[in-house]
Order: sequence, then C-alpha cells, then structure tokens
Amino acid sequence: MPPKVDTKAKIGVLGASGYTGSELVRLLLRHPNAELALLTADRRAGQEMAAVFPQFAPCVLPRLVSIDSIDWVGAGLDMIFCALPHATTQKVIKQVFAAVPEAKVVDLSADFRLADIASYARWYGHEHHAPELQRQAIYGLVEIYRDEIKRAHLVANPGCYTTCAQLPLIPLLRAKAIDPGEIVIDAKSGMTGAGRSAKEEMLFSEVSEGIHAYGVGHHRHMAELDQEFSKAAGREVIASFTPHLMPMNRGILSTIYVRTTGGSPDDLHATLLKFYANEPFVHVLPFGQMPQTRHVRGSNMTFIGVAKDRIAGRAIVGAALDNLVKGASGQAVQNMNLMLGFPETTGLEQIALFP
Amino acid sequence: MPPKVDTKAKIGVLGASGYTGSELVRLLLRHPNAELALLTADRRAGQEMAAVFPQFAPCVLPRLVSIDSIDWVGAGLDMIFCALPHATTQKVIKQVFAAVPEAKVVDLSADFRLADIASYARWYGHEHHAPELQRQAIYGLVEIYRDEIKRAHLVANPGCYTTCAQLPLIPLLRAKAIDPGEIVIDAKSGMTGAGRSAKEEMLFSEVSEGIHAYGVGHHRHMAELDQEFSKAAGREVIASFTPHLMPMNRGILSTIYVRTTGGSPDDLHATLLKFYANEPFVHVLPFGQMPQTRHVRGSNMTFIGVAKDRIAGRAIVGAALDNLVKGASGQAVQNMNLMLGFPETTGLEQIALFP
Amino acid sequence: MPPKVDTKAKIGVLGASGYTGSELVRLLLRHPNAELALLTADRRAGQEMAAVFPQFAPCVLPRLVSIDSIDWVGAGLDMIFCALPHATTQKVIKQVFAAVPEAKVVDLSADFRLADIASYARWYGHEHHAPELQRQAIYGLVEIYRDEIKRAHLVANPGCYTTCAQLPLIPLLRAKAIDPGEIVIDAKSGMTGAGRSAKEEMLFSEVSEGIHAYGVGHHRHMAELDQEFSKAAGREVIASFTPHLMPMNRGILSTIYVRTTGGSPDDLHATLLKFYANEPFVHVLPFGQMPQTRHVRGSNMTFIGVAKDRIAGRAIVGAALDNLVKGASGQAVQNMNLMLGFPETTGLEQIALFP
Amino acid sequence: MPPKVDTKAKIGVLGASGYTGSELVRLLLRHPNAELALLTADRRAGQEMAAVFPQFAPCVLPRLVSIDSIDWVGAGLDMIFCALPHATTQKVIKQVFAAVPEAKVVDLSADFRLADIASYARWYGHEHHAPELQRQAIYGLVEIYRDEIKRAHLVANPGCYTTCAQLPLIPLLRAKAIDPGEIVIDAKSGMTGAGRSAKEEMLFSEVSEGIHAYGVGHHRHMAELDQEFSKAAGREVIASFTPHLMPMNRGILSTIYVRTTGGSPDDLHATLLKFYANEPFVHVLPFGQMPQTRHVRGSNMTFIGVAKDRIAGRAIVGAALDNLVKGASGQAVQNMNLMLGFPETTGLEQIALFP
Repeated sequence: MPPKVDTKAKIGVLGASGYTGSELVRLLLRHPNAELALLTADRRAGQEMAAVFPQFAPCVLPRLVSIDSIDWVGAGLDMIFCALPHATTQKVIKQVFAAVPEAKVVDLSADFRLADIASYARWYGHEHHAPELQRQAIYGLVEIYRDEIKRAHLVANPGCYTTCAQLPLIPLLRAKAIDPGEIVIDAKSGMTGAGRSAKEEMLFSEVSEGIHAYGVGHHRHMAELDQEFSKAAGREVIASFTPHLMPMNRGILSTIYVRTTGGSPDDLHATLLKFYANEPFVHVLPFGQMPQTRHVRGSNMTFIGVAKDRIAGRAIVGAALDNLVKGASGQAVQNMNLMLGFPETTGLEQIALFP
Repeated sequence: MPPKVDTKAKIGVLGASGYTGSELVRLLLRHPNAELALLTADRRAGQEMAAVFPQFAPCVLPRLVSIDSIDWVGAGLDMIFCALPHATTQKVIKQVFAAVPEAKVVDLSADFRLADIASYARWYGHEHHAPELQRQAIYGLVEIYRDEIKRAHLVANPGCYTTCAQLPLIPLLRAKAIDPGEIVIDAKSGMTGAGRSAKEEMLFSEVSEGIHAYGVGHHRHMAELDQEFSKAAGREVIASFTPHLMPMNRGILSTIYVRTTGGSPDDLHATLLKFYANEPFVHVLPFGQMPQTRHVRGSNMTFIGVAKDRIAGRAIVGAALDNLVKGASGQAVQNMNLMLGFPETTGLEQIALFP
Repeated sequence: MPPKVDTKAKIGVLGASGYTGSELVRLLLRHPNAELALLTADRRAGQEMAAVFPQFAPCVLPRLVSIDSIDWVGAGLDMIFCALPHATTQKVIKQVFAAVPEAKVVDLSADFRLADIASYARWYGHEHHAPELQRQAIYGLVEIYRDEIKRAHLVANPGCYTTCAQLPLIPLLRAKAIDPGEIVIDAKSGMTGAGRSAKEEMLFSEVSEGIHAYGVGHHRHMAELDQEFSKAAGREVIASFTPHLMPMNRGILSTIYVRTTGGSPDDLHATLLKFYANEPFVHVLPFGQMPQTRHVRGSNMTFIGVAKDRIAGRAIVGAALDNLVKGASGQAVQNMNLMLGFPETTGLEQIALFP
Repeated sequence: MPPKVDTKAKIGVLGASGYTGSELVRLLLRHPNAELALLTADRRAGQEMAAVFPQFAPCVLPRLVSIDSIDWVGAGLDMIFCALPHATTQKVIKQVFAAVPEAKVVDLSADFRLADIASYARWYGHEHHAPELQRQAIYGLVEIYRDEIKRAHLVANPGCYTTCAQLPLIPLLRAKAIDPGEIVIDAKSGMTGAGRSAKEEMLFSEVSEGIHAYGVGHHRHMAELDQEFSKAAGREVIASFTPHLMPMNRGILSTIYVRTTGGSPDDLHATLLKFYANEPFVHVLPFGQMPQTRHVRGSNMTFIGVAKDRIAGRAIVGAALDNLVKGASGQAVQNMNLMLGFPETTGLEQIALFP
C-alpha cells in the first residue's frame, strides 16, 4: 500500500554527484512528500553535497556515502532513484531487489529500457546482467504507460532525446497519421545531456560558439526509438535520427520531418491536441507556432508545435523539453508520484526559468 | 489588517512585459497566498501574457491591459507591484494612492529609493514628481529594514547592483570593521539587468564572447549606495563602484576590496556570519570560499564569501545573487510577504537551477 | 582591363555599419590589392568607423558618408560592395550604373539573386525595381559560376544559408546521385546572420541558452535554393528547408538528409571529393566525419562531411561555414578577386580562429 | 646573424596540441618568413595536427612527434617555441641548449619569468631546474624590453594576466604618476586561459551562465607582477590582484583602481598616450572610453582606457587583450620577429574578429 498523501516517503538517490542526481535533489528537496534520506557518490563519499554542488550549501542534506556501505534493509527506503552511469546499474539494482524484494526503483540509465535483451546486447556490446529484472521493468514514459507505472516496482526512465521524439511522434504513429517509413528527427541538445565527466570535447572552449552533429547513423538511443515507435505503429519503424551538441546547458529541440498519410498538417496538429488535452506536462502550441527550448528551461513541461511544409503532404513537428527535467529527473519524480500514490504533478509545478 | 495566511491576496503587476514583471508572474503563480488579478503592459494591451512570454502558455492568467484602463477602486487589489521603467513610476503610484489611499505598493524602479529629493533631482536630472509619497516610502532591503517594511504602504525595492553590495558591506560598516574611505566595488552583471528594450548594444552578437565596464565613474546606482553606506557607517561614505556587462542572462557578482580597521579578514567573516545567522536568504560561505553566480541562479539566495588578501590589512569580499530574484522580483515578493503578514519565505523556497 | 596584380583597386563599401559591411572592411584592410576609398552608413554619416566598430580604432579609414553625398564619377571606384538591407539595393545600384556604366558591383543583398523577376515579386511582395540590371546579374557562387563571374559587372552574392546548402548538394544533384524529391535541410545559424538591427528577439537574454526554428515552411531563402537546385538537377526541385537560430555569433551548420539514387553513401562522398579536389575554399572531410562550425570561424572555408544513415539508401550530408565570411563578405571578396583579375585566394587566406 | 627578410626561418613548436600551441600554428602558417618544420605533442605523437585541431585539415603540416624523438642538431631549427605546461619546461630547454648552444627559444610557460630563483622556489614549491639558463633569460614584454629581446637566445614570454596589467601600469609606475601602495587589479579571463586539460570545473555546463573569482589572495601570477612593478617603480610594489573566470573563449579585461600622486586622471591618460604613441600593438582610447575584450579578439592588439573616478584623486584604468594572442602566442611571434630580425609586426597584422 502506498504511503498516504500527507506522509513523507524516504528517498535514496544513487549517484548524487552527477547532473541528473543533483536535479533529483533539487526537485525532491521541495517535494512535500519526500524526505531525502540517502545520497550516494562513490568518489565523493564522506563529503557534504555542498562540496560537490555548492547551490545546496544552505540546505540540510545527508552526507554522501558509497553504495557499498549501504544496509538496504536498514535504510527502509520507500523509493530509490538510480542515477548511475549506463552499464553499471544492472548489478546495483539486482543487489537492491535481492535485499529488499518489495523495493521500488526508478532507474535513469539506459540499462532497463530495452525489453529485448538480445537488442540490448547488440547495441551495448555485452550480455544483460539482470534479464529476470528486465522482464518486470516498465518503460517510464508516463503519458504512454501511466497505468503500468502505477503498479511497477522497477521503472526504466526514458532517455532525454527519446522522450523529446516519442511525445510528438507516438500519437501520430498510433493514429497512422504519418508515414512510418519516412521520419527524419534532427535533435539539438544542451551540454548537460552529456553528463559531468571531464572530457576534452566537453570543455567550455571546445563547445562555445559552435555546433556539430555526433553519433551520426549509430547513436544508441536509436534502439529505444525503434522499440517504442514500432510498438506505436504496429509495424517495424526505423527513423532517421541525428543528435547535435550546442552551447547551452539545458534543453533539447527535436525538429521532425514527416510525410502525412493523406491528412493535412492541421490533422496532425488536431491529433496531438486531442491526445494531450488533459496532460499536465505536455502543451501543444497553436498551429504554426514552433517551440523554443528556453521556454521550458527548469520545468517539467514539453512544448510541441506543428507547421506545414511548403511541400505538399509534408509537415514539420517540433518538440522542446529540458533534458534534466522532463528528459530525466523530472520525469523520474513524475514516475515516483505514480508509484507511491501521490498526485502526479506534486513537486513538479515549477514554471520555466526564462530568461 | 492583513489577509489571513490561508487567504489569497489579489495582486496587480504593472509592467508585466519586462523581465522583472515576468519574474514576478513566475514567482506569484506558485505563491500559495497570491492571486494574479491584474497584469498591465501598455504596448501589448489586449494580448495574452503567453504572446509576450511563451513560457506561460500552459498557465491561466488575466489578459494584459493598459494602465489607463484600470479602475483602481474596483480592482480591489491587496498588493500592487510596479515594474515600470525608471522615471515613469512616480506619477502612476501617485494616481494609485490618490484613488486608494490604503493601497500597498512595492515599486521595483529607482523612483522612490532616494530619501533626499534633492539628491534625486541631481542624479536623475528632474524634480521628483511625488515628494510627499517619498517621505512615506520605505527602502525595501529586508535584512536591514524588516520592521519598517512590515508597516509600510510604499516600499522602494532596492536595485540589483546595490543589493549585491549592501548585503556584504552594511554589517561591516555598522561594525566599523572596514575603512569607509577605501572601498572598491567591482561588479559584474548578466544581461537581464539591462532590461528588455531593443538596443543595438544588447544584441546577442554584441554581448557574446566579451566583457566591458560601463557607466564608469558616474553610474546612478551610486546615489543609492552613498545613502545606505553613509547611514550604516554614521558618516559620509563614497565607495568606488564600477559595473560590467557580461554574457550571461542572470547573476551579479560583486568583488569588493576593503581595508580592515585593525581586525583580521577572519574578523570580517565572523561579523557577517553572525549578522546573517538567522537569515533565510543570505548564506555566508566558509572563510576563504568565494561565491559563484551560477549557484544562486533562479533562487532568492545571496551567497557571501570573505578571503584575505596577501597585502596585510586588506580583505576581499564577494557576493553573488540573481539580479531578477533577490536583486528584483524575489526581494519584491519578500517585501510583500512582510507587508501582508505572510511568512517571509513563502513562494521563495525554490533552489538554484544549476547547471 | 583589370588592374594589375601589383596595383591597388579603389573600393567602396555601401553599408559599412552592419556586420557584413564591417567584415568587408576587416578583410579588405589586409587585402594587398585593395584600397578602402569610400565607406557609407547613412545613419552614422560623418562619424569615424571606430565609433561604429571600435575594433578599427587603430586603423586608418575614410570617414563614413551617406550614399546621397557620393559623386559616383568622381569617386573613381574600381569595385563597389553593396551591403545594404534587402529591398533598398535595387535603386541604389541602378543609380550607380546610370552614373558609371562600366562600374563593377558585388551586391550582398538578396535583390539580384533571383533570375526570374516574377519569382522575385512573388517572394518579396513587390515588383523588381531594376529588371534590366537583373538580366545582367550573375549569381556569385564561385565554385559553380567562376567563369561567368570573371566577366561580370554585377554579381549577386549568394545568401549564407543557401551557400551552405548549395555547396554540398549541387554536385550531387548534377551527378544525379540523390533523389531530388526527398531532400531535407535542417540548418542552424549563429546570430550575426540576422544582422545588427535592434530587435527584441535578438537581445542576448532572448537568445542565450536556447534554440528554435523560425520561418518554418516559408523562408525567403527557399526561392534561391529552388532556382539553383532545379538548374543543377535539370528538373524542378523543391527541398524542405528549416532554419534555426542558436546562441553563437558566427557559423551555419546544414544537416542534410538525402536518399541516394542507388549508389552508396560512399559514392556521394567520392562525388564531392572529386568535385572539390582543387577548390581552395571547400574541404571534404574523410568519410564518416562531420563538420563543426567552430573549425571554420573567421575563415572563408567550407567543410563538408558525408556519413551513412542506418537506413538503407539514405545518407547524411553536413556542411559548415562562417556566415559572415564564405556566407557573405569572404565570398564577396572572392568574387571581387575574379572580377578584377587578382588571384582568387588573395586576402582570404586567414585560418579559422578556434578556439 | 639573423636570416634575411626574404628567407624562411625553420620553426619548431613544442606542445602543439594545446591552445597556445595551435595558436602559434595558426599565426605561423601565414607568417611569410616562417616554415613550420616540427610540431610535438607527446600524447598525440604520430597523429596529424588535423586530428587534434580539425581547423587545420586543409593545411599542409608536419606530423606530430614526441619530444624525445627529436634530433636537435639535425633539425636545424632557427626558432623553438615552447608551449609546454608550467614546470616541465626547464628540463626540456636545458636539453635544447645542451645540444645546440646557439639555439633561440621563446618559452610560453612561467618557467623562466622570475629572475630570482629563490622567488621561483617559493611560489612554485620546488627548486629551479636550470638556474644558469635563468640568468640569460630575457622577460619578453616587447614594449618594455625590446632591445634586450633582440639580442636574446632565451625569452620568457609573459603571462596573459600579467601582460594585461603591466602594459597599462608600467608607464604610470615609471612616471611615478600613481601611488604604488594602493593598486587594485580586478581581472576577468576567458576560458582558454585555463588551457585544454579535461577538468570538471572547465566543462561547458560548469562555466556557462556564471562568473567567479579564483586563486583569491594567492595566484602565482602575482610573483611576476611584483617583479616587474617593483622594477618600474624603483621600490617594492605589491598590488592586489584577483582573477575571475567567465564564459567566453578568448579575452582578458583588467579593471584597475588607482590613486594618483597628485595629477589628474587626464594626466595618467596623457602619460599612457605618449608612452605608446608609436607602438603598433597598444592602442590608448580617448579619455573616458573603456576597452572591450571583443574588440581585440584574435588580434595582437591591446586596448587601454582611462576614466576618472568620482572620488577625488582616484582613476580607473582598463586594459583588454586576447589572452591567446597578445597574452601568449602573438606576443611570442612578436618576440621571434625581434630575435630573428624580421619586422616586428610581420604575421601579426590580423584585425580583430568582431562580432
């Protein structure tokens, strides 16, 4: 039975020294039903969170510990967020469930997103370490899998790029409103999407004043897109997807080029407007208006726009979200709210910080 | 009598199409005791707020109106925020109080900050238009004038640069811990401090990838500093103050060079630590640590640091705040909370958005 | 007969207070065969260039004058660059040729780029003001029209977006290597491409930390693309083109999605490599590498890359250039060099400024 | 005897994979008297320069080698630039002179800047490894030591921060126009000044949208300032110096607060104007104008401005330069020109890239 609305859930964040970890802390510190009981950061164990992220200096938070030091049973956590690097997560989560079978986990890595473990092995280059858990994992795109998430114990939080492509495209694919064989997704991401590890190509001077595509033709997020698009279309869908890195901290913009199956671009717009009519975190702009990443910065909102191309039968669909919020930690909290029985929007009401 | 804590105060924001106006809307939309009842924007009258600031598209807000169209009595506002350009404000506020003598106003412009109307005339080049109101105006630096603000009907919200210099220096001047004749304030500001008016020198391409000083030797904020520093020191103080503009949206950093009156830099640190021990929105860092603007972005917090210079008897004091929050709209809401009897931190708990 | 290589050509720059104007001045000040004899800027007439662009303070330059004050015959200019806003140019150039029939002009605006004046009227909303000159105008994409340019008196310098799409695509269309019915061009531009006029949406705080598409489905540059692509393909081509604005000063990146006509992506690469083998200002990267705008910043170079998509039969082509150099003023100087008989690369050898 | 003006000097660049190394390559590739004969980068040995800095892809350059692999005698270099990290350089240069006693070296590190090896040991925490070479080293601030540099075999190229403080202050100290006991230097630097090493605090997301002071009270550059200021003043001078890091690639701005010794701020301006009247790379702005870093970007120019403070007897002096050009590699080439007998400005004529 979930905690009641007026109780506090005890929360653990594994990997609090990365950007999605700190974003979870930012959101959960102001969540009325959350108590941050445990923060891990293996290389910074023993330190205060403020040493790693000085913005938390005025806040009371538990000291950082290493994962190995945790007594999972004694910790008595109601929810565990796993914000660890891809590929290290499967083993950790296996240990969690071995110790506490009734645990609830939202994993922000890619480790449990692919239902097909053969596909996982192909894209990630090694066997899945927890195939039995994979079978129970629910893909945590709330607007699509809300009911399954409510009952889940392990939720695989979607990727930021993929959320920003799925939210605009899944309703259109389900409605068979666009040609699934001719989808081009051009995505532009801010730098926090690349994480906090110290790499030369992520230095300010390498990133500022420029833009470039990367992972062209073979980005790992494609597996996730294939899975969900194919499910939505009821047939195999392979979209063309190209990510770009650009000089901003937060934000993803997807510019998506589609061919309609006979309807007009207005019909696509109407389909999306209807699909998201009651969703608190997806806003469909008036026809012809395109979204800007800056208008969702720091919020859990996704903005979607549809415009007609001058080529008959073609339309352009845009989507913008904050990769650290709706693209990661905000969506993770949204999943937690469902899993623990809190109102879905709790702790996620913050309006975008613009300018 | 102020509204009770569980009631909603009816709020008007004059000048909602500028950055401090939109920041007020951002904060007040999530303030549990605020109801945004009136938004003005003369040049955009008749439009939706979302046409001016698309981030509000998902929110329910009153349509923008012109100031001339307002029936001040009928509006029944509990609080009026005035976020109009400097020098247009005195006349508008005069009209407000003429119509509704018991009105409560927080003015974010510089129009009521100088108690001495002769000083006002000297710095601003024209006579004060509402000298009788000036006599009732309270300078709204909460940490210094909290009690007066609680009883005020007209609060002059301090400037962003001046807040970022006064918070670190007033306690030191009051304690006679620094030489008032040798203060150098080097301030660096993000671009939102310059407002939203379309000027060539504020274009992205003119601002990006560079920094420069401006208003050297004669910036208007100096009058405000002179007034408050002199009051704190009990003698005339004229500090050297040089502002710079740099490529960031939000944030002011003051790097302040002082000579102690005999004590050590540690003594300065201890004085500040004690002064702000119970303040929710001022955080003094451990001795030797200097603040970064990014760690207060979007929050109402001010970070202060003290370090010793290698020159005996000298210290370096740093302060950082978000010019749109503690430097403008956040401080304005803090003032409102005091004036209407709400807990001072209500609606201002948001943690900084970093990265 | 052109001036000899060791002589100095007298140059006039109309519109020196804009970004393409100042970029012409930057390049021509160091061009061994150029003498900057005349600079105009109507609103700044009478001022020094250093008052408008302080980087020229150490240089000797003629004072800014208004266009109306020029004695075209007496000026004795060997070359006139016209860097005026779109739609004001036709009348000015008409006057020039009326006064000096043998004049040589490179026009950086869009006013003479469309050979079909009916098309011009449709896209620009008014009749062409100099149809007889339009017939003599040569489209100044050097790599495609080098020979015509050498004999031209009026060259219409191509647009920045269009140069960055034509250089990668024209060789492929000519070779019939790609399907002309399925071209998607997603372009990302720095802010100098939008010029120096003071508009709210170009302020630093509106642009920083974000990206958005604009002119979706109906950008004027499309007419130029249609004209040149159709010519290259020998049939009507209408490409899908979507421009984006992002926070950088200089640079355009085109990410182009194409379907091959049977060949492999490697074949596309080979076609481009061969086409540009001897071109000094187009560099084709090794197969699979994609260009970055930062690596051409400040230079006249275009970088092109080709990668295969994971979808059979599809490829991704990237192109990067500096919108103010190869996308405007550098290309204009390249045109001048041809028109006046100087070696094509003179004054354009500068290597990109990275970081 | 130096090479004649129409010959090519054979140049080696040690440390070509860093930012000052690549900047040397950029400048020397277009220097009419330079032939880049040797490029080293120990960790990238065997690779093409274009693999490390793609902007050089169109250029012909020697392949990167390791320092250990060099035959110093056989290489026959006329000039060696040493752009290695601080503290590794002394040993390398010792080897160079051991093998080739008549070699000429410009060292861009801090290793030979302090004439007093005791001072070196105190600031750098270890004994100097080449004290006998230190005695021959000339401090390479051209505007001050031009004659000594012409005869030098080992030149210690000044630091970027220190160049930007010395150029405005040395003439004033020499003229005894300012009080040497009350100098405050507030410096703001772009990120390339921190080099290309992959550190968390230099990631884009850590740097963008913020500013902070660092090394407060104990930055190593102070030793260099003390040495040169004391020499200029003829007495010990210890200035207060605080560096800041901010989101731009290139540029340093020094805002300097001084007290005159009785003269007016205009007198300071006149002193600087006279001192730099014939200098090609220092430009003194009209009185009251302050420099902007963006107006010297990519050029070897330093801009200096003087304004009066409103406090009697005080003035504000500003200086701006590009840390990679006049603050490092441009100044190094200027030194080379003097050492090899080329005209001092050769290869350094490029005008600033703004915007």
